[in-house]
Amino acid sequence: MIIDCHGHYTTAPDALVAWRDRQIAAIGDPANAPSPSELQMSDDDIRESLEGAQLKLQRERGMDLAIFSPRASRMAHHLGDAKVSTIWSEICNDLIYRVCGLYPTNFVGVCQLPQSPGVPPEQSVAELERCVNELGFIGANLNPDPSGGWWTDPPLFDRWWYPLYEKLCELDVPAMIHVSDSCNPNFHMTGAHYINADTTAFMQLIMSDLFKDFPTLRLIIPHGGGAVPYHWGRYRGIAQDNNRPPLSELLQNVSFDTCVYHLPGMECLMKVVPVENIMFGSEMVGAVRGIDPETGHYYDDTKRYVDQISWLTDKDRKMIYEDNVRRIFPRLDGQLARQSAASNK
Amino acid sequence: MIIDCHGHYTTAPDALVAWRDRQIAAIGDPANAPSPSELQMSDDDIRESLEGAQLKLQRERGMDLAIFSPRASRMAHHLGDAKVSTIWSEICNDLIYRVCGLYPTNFVGVCQLPQSPGVPPEQSVAELERCVNELGFIGANLNPDPSGGWWTDPPLFDRWWYPLYEKLCELDVPAMIHVSDSCNPNFHMTGAHYINADTTAFMQLIMSDLFKDFPTLRLIIPHGGGAVPYHWGRYRGIAQDNNRPPLSELLQNVSFDTCVYHLPGMECLMKVVPVENIMFGSEMVGAVRGIDPETGHYYDDTKRYVDQISWLTDKDRKMIYEDNVRRIFPRLDGQLARQSAASNK
Repeated sequence: MIIDCHGHYTTAPDALVAWRDRQIAAIGDPANAPSPSELQMSDDDIRESLEGAQLKLQRERGMDLAIFSPRASRMAHHLGDAKVSTIWSEICNDLIYRVCGLYPTNFVGVCQLPQSPGVPPEQSVAELERCVNELGFIGANLNPDPSGGWWTDPPLFDRWWYPLYEKLCELDVPAMIHVSDSCNPNFHMTGAHYINADTTAFMQLIMSDLFKDFPTLRLIIPHGGGAVPYHWGRYRGIAQDNNRPPLSELLQNVSFDTCVYHLPGMECLMKVVPVENIMFGSEMVGAVRGIDPETGHYYDDTKRYVDQISWLTDKDRKMIYEDNVRRIFPRLDGQLARQSAASNK
Repeated sequence: MIIDCHGHYTTAPDALVAWRDRQIAAIGDPANAPSPSELQMSDDDIRESLEGAQLKLQRERGMDLAIFSPRASRMAHHLGDAKVSTIWSEICNDLIYRVCGLYPTNFVGVCQLPQSPGVPPEQSVAELERCVNELGFIGANLNPDPSGGWWTDPPLFDRWWYPLYEKLCELDVPAMIHVSDSCNPNFHMTGAHYINADTTAFMQLIMSDLFKDFPTLRLIIPHGGGAVPYHWGRYRGIAQDNNRPPLSELLQNVSFDTCVYHLPGMECLMKVVPVENIMFGSEMVGAVRGIDPETGHYYDDTKRYVDQISWLTDKDRKMIYEDNVRRIFPRLDGQLARQSAASNK
């Protein structure tokens, strides 16, 4: 089984985008904000948005299942206040729930949290609980910078975040550390802000004792870990110079995905990070949509690179494609069974 | 000849640190600011600071020459105003000048600029000119984020920076894009801020036409290019998706150093970036000071990794160690000759 641990619903129906545009336009003028009930999408609208995109690519690339979240770039936690963010998160999560109902073997849900800059993460706990307990989601995306590129909230090791970690542990679901759009003109979203956030988060974890307080917390660093595997010696050395534990200890709680869009990068990842800590991911439909003229294949067809790594054993590949995902997302199998049973009713 | 293109004077005499501490303490109280003449360092103080550090390591590692700058982490452009920054830059650059005079075959100078957040880079032009024309420096460190981790100044492609680029071109010296300390608690200095800035800068260059306006401008992205070589496919793909020129075009003006502290990372760099665009660098004495227990050698002894790359030819290595540096720093040979002549007087 091939499980993509990092899929975003990038191609959601136009009605969603139009509703969100109205919500954003009304940020200074709440009386004109659209109500959630004004958003109308038929099951066919949803099917159409996926059949020619995510599902087509899954079939072409031999992928069975995506752990699927609302589009990361549109979380845009920096827009409006916590109320705006809450309504938008509920809408996006409800939509993912419908996707999973329509395609119960192709998708399992991961939620967007109603974060907002300066607002305690504790206020995201209720939506996390709703998504896991009521919608059957198996994880969450946690934005380490709700300000959208200004990095004004505390680092991930700060107690500011602890109520959210407590709930993640209690529910036994992991969080992917994933930023959203950048409104800082210095940071290109997918080319700088995403990758920087991954690097930043891992470095915060190196310098902190977070996992002493939360030994069962599991965090996923996407995009192949940002710059971390490429600079693995630097990170090992900084940990050592600062009398921090070796990175192997951190890897009891931290994993990386395989969203690295060329073979030499994927080779670097596979050489330095233990196979136990790598989960297959493609970020599709996502950051790069073109075909690489050097290979004739989509840049983000990351399975091709994993398959080309000559030294991986069949067991290694099974861990990357399937077993690690099941370990890190323990709710996956039960949820798949529930979705399947519901669709057979 | 082995030339390290990225060396910082990290071990400067204690008197310098003490003077700077007094300057910082007087930021809100200018009447108590120390005068530059109060800073006293003998030639022996300077020799002592280098003999057991940079020079010892050069000898041990078989390096001949370092392109040497004031300590990047202490530029701290965010502290105080432009006047504080100007005085501090002059002191640091004058000290590098003395180092080059004492060791004319071991060091050639690169300057710190008196940048300050919100202050037009044009105000750094005079110090750049002084350093090149009077002190014989062959390049500059340009801080893309003088705010120290808040990224409040415009991106590198903004006309804000153009007067500085004009002067760099006129003087025919390159700039290394190098941030300084981070005062944003989210960003660890050497583990996040440095690497993020490299990635950020390269992505800014991808999206801009800067080199159409400055076809002879040469920029160096340190620390092996941040995350860029590891995510080379992502950057090629983003350029392509956005109808930007291929990265090969950017590489007419942009180079990377080899400050990557483990072999798999160095292999990734050498696989994706053309040899013409790689200059040997170690960042020493710098970000990581320990010995890697896996190899028994210093993490930052980057020459060892370069030497281990099996597919590099002798010609490739000569380009990386020497020829590319001479091309990108055209003032190098003349300055070395002048320093040598002066020392023989």
